[in-house]
Amino acid sequence: MSATIIDGRAVSLQIEDELKVRIDALGQSGVRPHLVVVLVGDDAASHVYVRNKQRACERTGVISTRMDLPSSSTQQEVLDIISDLNNDESVHGILVQSPLPPRMDELQIADAIDPRKDVDGFHPTNLGRLVQGDTDGMLPCTPAGIMRLLEETGANLTGSKAVVLGRSRIVGMPMALLLAQKGIDATVTIVHSRSEEHSLLCRDSDLLVAAIGRPGTVKSEWVKPGAIVIDVGVSRIEDGSVPSGSRLAGDVDPSVSEVAGWLTPVPGGVGPMTIAMLLTNTVRAAENLST
Amino acid sequence: MSATIIDGRAVSLQIEDELKVRIDALGQSGVRPHLVVVLVGDDAASHVYVRNKQRACERTGVISTRMDLPSSSTQQEVLDIISDLNNDESVHGILVQSPLPPRMDELQIADAIDPRKDVDGFHPTNLGRLVQGDTDGMLPCTPAGIMRLLEETGANLTGSKAVVLGRSRIVGMPMALLLAQKGIDATVTIVHSRSEEHSLLCRDSDLLVAAIGRPGTVKSEWVKPGAIVIDVGVSRIEDGSVPSGSRLAGDVDPSVSEVAGWLTPVPGGVGPMTIAMLLTNTVRAAENLST
Repeated sequence: MSATIIDGRAVSLQIEDELKVRIDALGQSGVRPHLVVVLVGDDAASHVYVRNKQRACERTGVISTRMDLPSSSTQQEVLDIISDLNNDESVHGILVQSPLPPRMDELQIADAIDPRKDVDGFHPTNLGRLVQGDTDGMLPCTPAGIMRLLEETGANLTGSKAVVLGRSRIVGMPMALLLAQKGIDATVTIVHSRSEEHSLLCRDSDLLVAAIGRPGTVKSEWVKPGAIVIDVGVSRIEDGSVPSGSRLAGDVDPSVSEVAGWLTPVPGGVGPMTIAMLLTNTVRAAENLST
Repeated sequence: MSATIIDGRAVSLQIEDELKVRIDALGQSGVRPHLVVVLVGDDAASHVYVRNKQRACERTGVISTRMDLPSSSTQQEVLDIISDLNNDESVHGILVQSPLPPRMDELQIADAIDPRKDVDGFHPTNLGRLVQGDTDGMLPCTPAGIMRLLEETGANLTGSKAVVLGRSRIVGMPMALLLAQKGIDATVTIVHSRSEEHSLLCRDSDLLVAAIGRPGTVKSEWVKPGAIVIDVGVSRIEDGSVPSGSRLAGDVDPSVSEVAGWLTPVPGGVGPMTIAMLLTNTVRAAENLST
């Protein structure tokens, strides 16, 4: 039996349609949501990501401004720009694209963004709200997008066992908090590189979220038959069978589709949902800041 | 075989001695750490807790000021007082004792405290730092105290299985984040009222932190032989065998001491450590604010 594929692209377009209604309503009162993306340096993948984000803005009617800074920029220059954007009433959302040049302090930059304009949901105040069980604020985009994909499966997660593979501040940790929150009520285990018996822990879980960035790590033997498997990883791997010589691969081995009940594809699963949640946060910020 | 008792009172006195050195150093530059405790209404248990906190301040040389507000106080009155304390340079730590009268919004009050003076560690910014893996800030006192007690056991938690029973914003959730952080590296499962198979999950764990507030919930059959068991619960229960007719009881049944390898008592385990960590946060705040 083959897993049902959770089509993140389709869901993301649905969300865009819902957002257009809210963006129209904002337009009635003369407000157009405005996202500023700050890009430092010339990381090729980042340029692709930013372009995808800007296209999504165009599709929905969100204004997007892109600020390209040379890789020689200093930490202080980036902080000064953020300060200006914080004070600029025409700007509702601020995003500083990761990764930054290695000498820069990403946490300090996340800290500097006004939490109300923090559409990535990486500011400690916004992350802290998740610890408090408050999910009304700016949610980190990838975990929030996954919560929405889980709704698509219709699964009741109450009392189910969930494993989050990976403990990053951006995906793993907030994901665990969202799944364990009241109203969702999964029994969540955070599994990471120093854990033992990865495969056993995963195989015991009804829901598996893989966010480690190592292609093909999760094998079919790791997965409980019928489980929901969410693949967050996106890595570029060599593949001689395709013209470009390389393709995107997730953390989940393709064989898992024979065992899982539900599976997100890579690409076309979590990725588009992350962008849809970025738009959602931007629209929410515009709504909050303009009232 | 009987569990080794982890003596929280003894460790807390050790911490107080360490703090006295830092308080002396601050004194050299004319700074004396100053904690303000705001107490609303006349909850009897709160008065006991606050008195214990003030005594610990006296022992170590921290100035403590207590502000007693009538239970008829409004939310806005409390917020105004916090605002004054935020702006008062002579104040380094602000604590609003829980529980507040039911009509008050505890989260809004936690939000209002300057994160640098938030010695309870409940402000979203301070909780969010735990999600980021940053433990240099104001840590929530109970989980931080437990981390210190775990050091006492000498146990290496890397790859060990830990269960946190309870998911409150004050204990369970931050506890899970601290145990899963890099450098501690436990494989953490958050178990709560909607989880299934509580006893099995607990019995599979090398470390069990019980923070649910239901006396005697964790039975000896729930505990893996030799495991570390941390009892956060403090409930008052009737006991005809003592003169007062009641005594304090933890979440862990006394029979667990026959199975566990290490166990914290109630009282005298986590409780004194929570106060020691409150002092630690106050001294840290004074150090940070006076440089």
